[in-house]
Amino acid sequence: MNKKQGMQSVVFTNPPIITSTANIVGPMEGKGLLQGYFDYIMPDNLNGLASWEQCESYLMEYAIKRAIEKDNSTMEEVDCVFAGDLLNQLMSTHFAMKNLKRPFLGLYGACSTMVEGMLLSAILLDGGFFSKIVAAASSHHDAAERQYRFPNEMGVQRPPGAQWTVTGSGAVVVSTSGSGPRITTGTIGKIVDYGIKDPNAMGPAMAPAAVDTIWQHLQDIGRTPAYYDMIFTGDLGSVGRDLVIQLLQEKGVDISTNYQDCGCMVYKENQDAHAGASGCASSAIVLCGYIYKKLLQDKLKKILFLGTGSLHSTTSYQQKESIPCIAHAVSIEMP
Amino acid sequence: MNKKQGMQSVVFTNPPIITSTANIVGPMEGKGLLQGYFDYIMPDNLNGLASWEQCESYLMEYAIKRAIEKDNSTMEEVDCVFAGDLLNQLMSTHFAMKNLKRPFLGLYGACSTMVEGMLLSAILLDGGFFSKIVAAASSHHDAAERQYRFPNEMGVQRPPGAQWTVTGSGAVVVSTSGSGPRITTGTIGKIVDYGIKDPNAMGPAMAPAAVDTIWQHLQDIGRTPAYYDMIFTGDLGSVGRDLVIQLLQEKGVDISTNYQDCGCMVYKENQDAHAGASGCASSAIVLCGYIYKKLLQDKLKKILFLGTGSLHSTTSYQQKESIPCIAHAVSIEMP
Repeated sequence: MNKKQGMQSVVFTNPPIITSTANIVGPMEGKGLLQGYFDYIMPDNLNGLASWEQCESYLMEYAIKRAIEKDNSTMEEVDCVFAGDLLNQLMSTHFAMKNLKRPFLGLYGACSTMVEGMLLSAILLDGGFFSKIVAAASSHHDAAERQYRFPNEMGVQRPPGAQWTVTGSGAVVVSTSGSGPRITTGTIGKIVDYGIKDPNAMGPAMAPAAVDTIWQHLQDIGRTPAYYDMIFTGDLGSVGRDLVIQLLQEKGVDISTNYQDCGCMVYKENQDAHAGASGCASSAIVLCGYIYKKLLQDKLKKILFLGTGSLHSTTSYQQKESIPCIAHAVSIEMP
Repeated sequence: MNKKQGMQSVVFTNPPIITSTANIVGPMEGKGLLQGYFDYIMPDNLNGLASWEQCESYLMEYAIKRAIEKDNSTMEEVDCVFAGDLLNQLMSTHFAMKNLKRPFLGLYGACSTMVEGMLLSAILLDGGFFSKIVAAASSHHDAAERQYRFPNEMGVQRPPGAQWTVTGSGAVVVSTSGSGPRITTGTIGKIVDYGIKDPNAMGPAMAPAAVDTIWQHLQDIGRTPAYYDMIFTGDLGSVGRDLVIQLLQEKGVDISTNYQDCGCMVYKENQDAHAGASGCASSAIVLCGYIYKKLLQDKLKKILFLGTGSLHSTTSYQQKESIPCIAHAVSIEMP
């Protein structure tokens, strides 16, 4: 493709194909709204391992191996892997990739990581450099809580607007040949920061970044929201989702009838997750289970899929900085 | 280009051009071996800012802006930026990118980040998706010490094999047109882990990863070390450098006469940096100053440049895990 100056989007000449996906979750996600859309539900959040971090590594390793297996491929056929997670220095990703022994490029986009990896995978494949790439992301509730907020053992009460970090991982296999939905375009996000400083309000903090990327995508590609059967964001939760609809309405764009946030699709009302799911795995497990199946069944034919990342750290919070956010998008279409 | 199965390397059809570079360092680096090769030397490690983390953000923002200025370009002409640093959740990168307002893809490769970004930039440009991309990386001694080891105020004695995290940042502008050295090939690394657990022995920990990628590069592209005027690694320091030479000798490859490590090129013997420099900025400031000038002067015509990353975290260390390492490579050649 040829990119025009000022565009943040790319249009693929030979749209790469998502030939396989896999996901894995913890018990809480397994009892949620998406029962029947997971490859494996762990009996507990340790799964026999010594630490939550080791368990998160296992989650990613499982998702990648299972996706390759479902693709009827071998690990040796994977040209490279794009992956990342929420832990400091991508701890769970690195120990997963140590075991998988494939060429690897580490990403940090917080909860936008899955889409960042898919977008880069599609670019590398359409550019003719490789033939099969895996993109993966993971998060683990207990590992994330003790790193970002409070260890669970302290029993700190969570505010109503807080979200629940998903324990899980998803992996997609993107190939130059095979059958399945195709990644037809991608939009790279810019950092957007509206000055929100409360790390319990990540949904509202990320909403303007999602709005910026959706708006830019529609401008760049020349589409209206009606082109898509559904537009999905990654983990804005109920508060952030409503804000996205409202902010786009103020720009004259109506997505109120064909938009949902993955963070609102994971847990049941009575599961006490408050404003919904969050974490790299929120978008990853929904895409790699529910959404991918609906695409294969032709119940969804054209979707816009956004990963949304809240790029704060405990240090930036302690230093009273605001939360920089980003959103990347890919459009996925059945042939 | 067309990639052969099993190869970790790509060969560019229209090798992208490094049209500009810039760097910035702290006072200790400014008094070191590379005086005269820096765009700006800060008077101290805060440079008037409120925290070391804010200072590191400034370092990256300066390097990117200065590189664009030296390229006679505007920020609006930059299609996207690949960047990363060592801080948890890429804190300094995200606040720099918040100010720069360009499409951004976050990377975490520890000290391999600079080369990971250059490799991906070259792929996106040669693939025809964009025309101008910036790759940047930063590190800050004081911010890194308090995050990874001990706050400087504690005055903990450093072991003789320890390295000194560079305070600085480097940025390269990679373009599809213009003049300058070209990125002709790239090799994506795999994670290599020889079981070293001491975070004060990062050089020896990373050496096998560097060896793996150099070996793979030579196999993939069909070259011998003699093809290159020089082979550079990022931040192995004196202990790691000697190990690379020895490990490659055991494989029948001799790089003893045309190999140097950027970590050995930054500080003078009497600066008490022990085994040499480390950090994302070690390779970045050497490449964006000294090496780039030598290329433009035709004193170096063909180099292989490796970024080497030690992918541990404080949590992985506390959990007694070994240190996974990775190295990515690009070959840079004058036309």
